[in-house]
Amino acid sequence: MEIIRNNFKDQLPKVYKAIEEADFMAIDGEFSGISDGPSVSTLTNGFDTPEERYQKLRKHSMDFLLFQFGLCTFSYDNTEARYLMKSFNFYIFPKPFNRNSTDKKFVCQSSSIDFLANQGFDFNKVFRNGIPYLNQEEERQLRDQYEEKRSQANGASSLSYISNAPKTPVNIPEEHKSFIDKIVESVEDLLESEEKRSLDLQPSTGYQRKLIYQTLNWKYQRGIHVETLENDKKERYIAIRKVDEEERKKIEQEKQAKEQEELDDAVGFSRIIHAISTSGKLVVGHNMLLDIMHTIHQFFCQLPDELNEFKEVTTCVFPRVLDTKLMATTNPFKEIVYNTSLGELEKRLKDPPFKPPKVDNAQGFPGYNTDSEQLHEAGYDAYITGLCFISMANYLGSFLSPPKTFVSSRSKIIRPFFNKLFLMRIMDIPYLNLEGPDLQPKRDNVLHVTFPKEWKTSDLYQLFSAFGNIQVSWIDDMSAFVSLCQPDQVQIAVNTSRYAESYKIQTYAEYIAKKNEENMA
Amino acid sequence: MEIIRNNFKDQLPKVYKAIEEADFMAIDGEFSGISDGPSVSTLTNGFDTPEERYQKLRKHSMDFLLFQFGLCTFSYDNTEARYLMKSFNFYIFPKPFNRNSTDKKFVCQSSSIDFLANQGFDFNKVFRNGIPYLNQEEERQLRDQYEEKRSQANGASSLSYISNAPKTPVNIPEEHKSFIDKIVESVEDLLESEEKRSLDLQPSTGYQRKLIYQTLNWKYQRGIHVETLENDKKERYIAIRKVDEEERKKIEQEKQAKEQEELDDAVGFSRIIHAISTSGKLVVGHNMLLDIMHTIHQFFCQLPDELNEFKEVTTCVFPRVLDTKLMATTNPFKEIVYNTSLGELEKRLKDPPFKPPKVDNAQGFPGYNTDSEQLHEAGYDAYITGLCFISMANYLGSFLSPPKTFVSSRSKIIRPFFNKLFLMRIMDIPYLNLEGPDLQPKRDNVLHVTFPKEWKTSDLYQLFSAFGNIQVSWIDDMSAFVSLCQPDQVQIAVNTSRYAESYKIQTYAEYIAKKNEENMA
Ligand SMILES: Nc1nc2c(ncn2[C@@H]2O[C@H](COP(=O)(O)OP(=O)(O)O)[C@@H](O)[C@H]2O)c(=O)[nH]1
Ligand SMILES: Nc1nc2c(ncn2[C@@H]2O[C@H](COP(=O)(O)OP(=O)(O)O)[C@@H](O)[C@H]2O)c(=O)[nH]1
Repeated sequence: MEIIRNNFKDQLPKVYKAIEEADFMAIDGEFSGISDGPSVSTLTNGFDTPEERYQKLRKHSMDFLLFQFGLCTFSYDNTEARYLMKSFNFYIFPKPFNRNSTDKKFVCQSSSIDFLANQGFDFNKVFRNGIPYLNQEEERQLRDQYEEKRSQANGASSLSYISNAPKTPVNIPEEHKSFIDKIVESVEDLLESEEKRSLDLQPSTGYQRKLIYQTLNWKYQRGIHVETLENDKKERYIAIRKVDEEERKKIEQEKQAKEQEELDDAVGFSRIIHAISTSGKLVVGHNMLLDIMHTIHQFFCQLPDELNEFKEVTTCVFPRVLDTKLMATTNPFKEIVYNTSLGELEKRLKDPPFKPPKVDNAQGFPGYNTDSEQLHEAGYDAYITGLCFISMANYLGSFLSPPKTFVSSRSKIIRPFFNKLFLMRIMDIPYLNLEGPDLQPKRDNVLHVTFPKEWKTSDLYQLFSAFGNIQVSWIDDMSAFVSLCQPDQVQIAVNTSRYAESYKIQTYAEYIAKKNEENMA
Repeated sequence: MEIIRNNFKDQLPKVYKAIEEADFMAIDGEFSGISDGPSVSTLTNGFDTPEERYQKLRKHSMDFLLFQFGLCTFSYDNTEARYLMKSFNFYIFPKPFNRNSTDKKFVCQSSSIDFLANQGFDFNKVFRNGIPYLNQEEERQLRDQYEEKRSQANGASSLSYISNAPKTPVNIPEEHKSFIDKIVESVEDLLESEEKRSLDLQPSTGYQRKLIYQTLNWKYQRGIHVETLENDKKERYIAIRKVDEEERKKIEQEKQAKEQEELDDAVGFSRIIHAISTSGKLVVGHNMLLDIMHTIHQFFCQLPDELNEFKEVTTCVFPRVLDTKLMATTNPFKEIVYNTSLGELEKRLKDPPFKPPKVDNAQGFPGYNTDSEQLHEAGYDAYITGLCFISMANYLGSFLSPPKTFVSSRSKIIRPFFNKLFLMRIMDIPYLNLEGPDLQPKRDNVLHVTFPKEWKTSDLYQLFSAFGNIQVSWIDDMSAFVSLCQPDQVQIAVNTSRYAESYKIQTYAEYIAKKNEENMA
């Protein structure tokens, strides 16, 4: 089901209900880009530490926009031994909410845009009809704005004014005094009059309105209601109505309700993420580190400086996540699944020893058909991520005694896969551990090499040709990690390089030590 | 006429012809954003110097993408006393050209995108079918790449290799020797065989191919043609063919022609700008400083550091430009044109004392109808910019004796409007002068004020309430220029502020002197 700005409010209860009923959910995001660094490969070095990887993604990936969000909820139907699924495909765009809202900027990467364009992605839907959103800080600010306005209108003015300007009586600049006096006169007339109930002032500037509000708030704490309206010509003017206390309260309440609705509209898509978060349910994703980072960054808060804090925030926002890519690259799956890219994985998991999961569309929900792929639409990707999870979970049931054909998302047997996020292209650390410290491989067969810009991979092969098979992991165009087959050759390589001028070799340990030193300084 | 990636090559001759026939052209660009600074107003302070304005636009506007370019050519048809116009609306997108091309990133500003979305702008056309482009540096690099590949394939190898690796014979690493030897053997077989004309090697890695190329280039300067092909599985392999010298040359020529075509395709939309530029014809735009900056930045070169250099580059790229907004805000138009925004100007210039220009669509060109506005489509905006220019130029003819009803774009009478670009919202410098130094107003009634973040315009009004009417030009949230009615009050204001703690007032002259000092340091 497609959710855009126009139908968001109407469909919201359906989404909430789906989340409420779900046993677990699958999510997926599409972004306007991946890396604003020189290239994606520098973003994913084979010997990054988890901390380094987090820092790179935080610095080089967060300026892109998460503009499509797929959510697929799965609830188990015991009587028919099948899952019922509801899938939602949200289009997201930070349409400025009002004159005061931040005018968000985001980066697009041509290759990512071109890739999505080739998949038939509908950019018009994003930009013309994407659902807006606010992070928690922006939501707080907007709420404060409303509250300030309200408190001003109610008379409890807290206007910022230079030095110690007296709050009452109002300090009216000389040249505005006669203007304000006339207005006070007309309000007196209104209050004394039997017939007249209301009074519309002439259009005025923001500054004039400020002076009027201050004056009227000070002079008439009760008895009138003052508000700013816009006429046909988009000019703003002040409208004054005589009200008794009852009426005044009612007006205020109506206004407050309307403001709450506006606030909700502005918070927009973030409400969905809040609902997923507070449900505390299992959230499944495929290679989901970037999805989680973008989701938190866009809808909750700026990403923290340190990896440890990021783990804490993630655990708050998503108490239980499972990465199907990590699952597929872990035993017992690792040995029987060769290609863990999402599309391939889904196909593989339809064949023995796996069983295609029994999943039907919930009533009233249009479904996806895995035969006619719609890969890279977020809703579809979330859907097949869910399928992959179900197949793999059920497969684990075959190891139980007695074997089970259905394993629920609450089963202990899948617990070891919780809260571990797949780390792409890191050779010796399979996952980011959200629940504690990360694995620390020795890397005693790894060298760090620095060299001139002109070098290519082949130059490195040539340089190390005496050491048999090597593996090159580029850091940037002037450095790379090179891993040798045998750790005992590392020292030999370092020694032979001692007098080289064009390049420099150090051990991984030396490199890390120097790096930490620099960070301390 | 809409020009996208799919029809670009077919329509190119039409565009070239239109430029060739034209008496003058009008252009307009649509961008993915305007300012990546905190707000547009900080980008356009009322008391910017031209140098400051240039620097701000250069720093805060060039990361956006010019993604729609309107070109409208006008040629005068003497026999019927009318202009014939051809209008083109180009969609532009930096689709990565090949694996080596830079993956361009660009920024989008939500408010600009939302604005265009409301005008019905078709983002899918840009992202799915925009015409690619290269600036001159990128074009040079791509040409070099082709030439290097060619020279390598021809045997005049110039491969970068570490230290002084001997070029002939090739230094093959030990573990690859038997692999290369076997290939040399099979090539010998091929050369000796009567029936066999060609040989496809097994798929190989880039490094293996490099070694093969080097070896074959060294051993067989003639007699064979070697090339890299891709099989169905997208694996690359080397194909070898026996050729005599004649054949070899023909193959090379064909390859060269194909490469030139690929290069032209990659240069893409920039070719249009080159054609406009080399035509040397008058180019008309409305409020065109940003259009010119983006055009040069995207299709020619990085913008220079200094305004003076920018003027030089602009004069090279566009030897003759005319800004209709500057024209409309200059006498004799200033007094009879009240609103110079493009849409309003066009309407105004249809009524006396102006005459609606006689302009017809050239045969085979779909036209625009000014009654059903399509404002903010670049092609339409360029079109009505052209109309505005014609009306205003013809109006100048009424001052001649004897009066003329038609003034050509070559007439001396419009010469004073050449090469002056409108400066938006600068109070006392109407234009950027591309042909020499800029105007230097005194600004002796202007104060520079620094204050706490919390202040609002009203606080400034209050602070200066003793000095009558003031005008505030915000610089950022902690400073502003304030202009007083009378220059002789400036010193009084500075003096009274001497002991103030929360704010600071200095004269404009003091502010500029300090700024220049800082720049020198
Ligand atoms: N108390 C009060 N002050 C207002 C109101 N409307 C405007 N003002 C004040 O006047 C300033 C200028 O308002 P306005 O011209 O409407 O908008 P702006 O110029 O875009 O900020 C605001 O920043 C407020 O401080 C109002 O309804 N109540
Ligand atoms: N002389 C020559 N060298 C080639 C050719 N193809 C590949 N190479 C070399 O092998 C390297 C690796 O090529 P390849 O694997 O195709 O692409 P890459 O890994 O994406 O750069 C290139 O950077 C070239 O130096 C060729 O056709 N001629």
